[in-house]
Amino acid sequence: MAIRYPNGKKFQPKRIPSAKKSDYKKDSSFSNRGMRFEERIEESNEFYLSRGFAVIHKKPTPLQIVNVHYPKRSAAVVTEAYFQKPSTTDFNGVYKGFHLDFEAKETRNKQSFPLKNFHEHQLHHMRAVTDQGGKAFVLVHFSMHEEVFLIPASIFIAWTNNEEKRKSIPKSWIEESGFRVSQGFMPSVDYLSAVDEWLSL
Amino acid sequence: MAIRYPNGKKFQPKRIPSAKKSDYKKDSSFSNRGMRFEERIEESNEFYLSRGFAVIHKKPTPLQIVNVHYPKRSAAVVTEAYFQKPSTTDFNGVYKGFHLDFEAKETRNKQSFPLKNFHEHQLHHMRAVTDQGGKAFVLVHFSMHEEVFLIPASIFIAWTNNEEKRKSIPKSWIEESGFRVSQGFMPSVDYLSAVDEWLSL
Repeated sequence: MAIRYPNGKKFQPKRIPSAKKSDYKKDSSFSNRGMRFEERIEESNEFYLSRGFAVIHKKPTPLQIVNVHYPKRSAAVVTEAYFQKPSTTDFNGVYKGFHLDFEAKETRNKQSFPLKNFHEHQLHHMRAVTDQGGKAFVLVHFSMHEEVFLIPASIFIAWTNNEEKRKSIPKSWIEESGFRVSQGFMPSVDYLSAVDEWLSL
Repeated sequence: MAIRYPNGKKFQPKRIPSAKKSDYKKDSSFSNRGMRFEERIEESNEFYLSRGFAVIHKKPTPLQIVNVHYPKRSAAVVTEAYFQKPSTTDFNGVYKGFHLDFEAKETRNKQSFPLKNFHEHQLHHMRAVTDQGGKAFVLVHFSMHEEVFLIPASIFIAWTNNEEKRKSIPKSWIEESGFRVSQGFMPSVDYLSAVDEWLSL
């Protein structure tokens, strides 16, 4: 989505880096057909939207804006801003009347999914959404296996509270208790089918 | 919500300007008890969240990030970014299992609410949300009267498509067809009561 500003300059969308440079570099190498997992979800969301299947969007990266410059005859420029920790999940929207709310994560681990990438705020948010009747979940991409699973927030959060203080969820457990997400061309990550399966229980 | 960055510097939240400087200045003068309408909604959302009544958040301002600087031993700094037109509404979340999606606007007009502040994208979005079973609406603040109304998206959108190409909705019509939102201390803008009234129809 290219936007033309009053000065006639055209800004091509660029990949938005995450808060830490190290994360960003790491993520890039996780590519699946040259695309990061999040981008494949966004592409799938566009497909769902265009077909009238669901209205799901990624939230913009939260930034703390400190300085804005207003040049004459051209667009306002943010000249100083800082990345903020998100207090919610990255994606949300509505599907068949249900409020969906989820986070998409990928790992190169083969046997387990590490929990360290979740902030306390995000877990709290997913719990609150679930309590309010929304459908909160996590989409996990095991990039080495090219497999994607949906894990409902309620059981995901139980793992983060476990007494053994485990720092990861075994893949075998996810295979049994989560929902496998099929992948293809259109949509790339068909997570709504997995949501259907979950809702039908 | 102050965040401490690795360099120990603390960033206090600042008011985030909208895309056009002129809008921002104008909005600031609309203040109600020194707060902009959007800020009062955010405050109400915090109240609702803290009581477990609903999980509604404002989406971050969408920015096109062009340049990021990564200084050693301190937080990444965005040094060039541009405001983007939002393609969705500003607020969304879940309430009693319903997906709520809305835009908050204020006007100094006494007799009507101007429609010019809505982008085609936003109207399209509200229609899509409604079609998917979500509850999309507009909260309108008549600042000169200190009155707030909830207008369901379906009837709001009908006004934007009217054959007479009207550029505003008469306040008298909003009083009859919308839902009056009570204002107070906690929450400042009690729009969930108006949503309840709407849902009960």
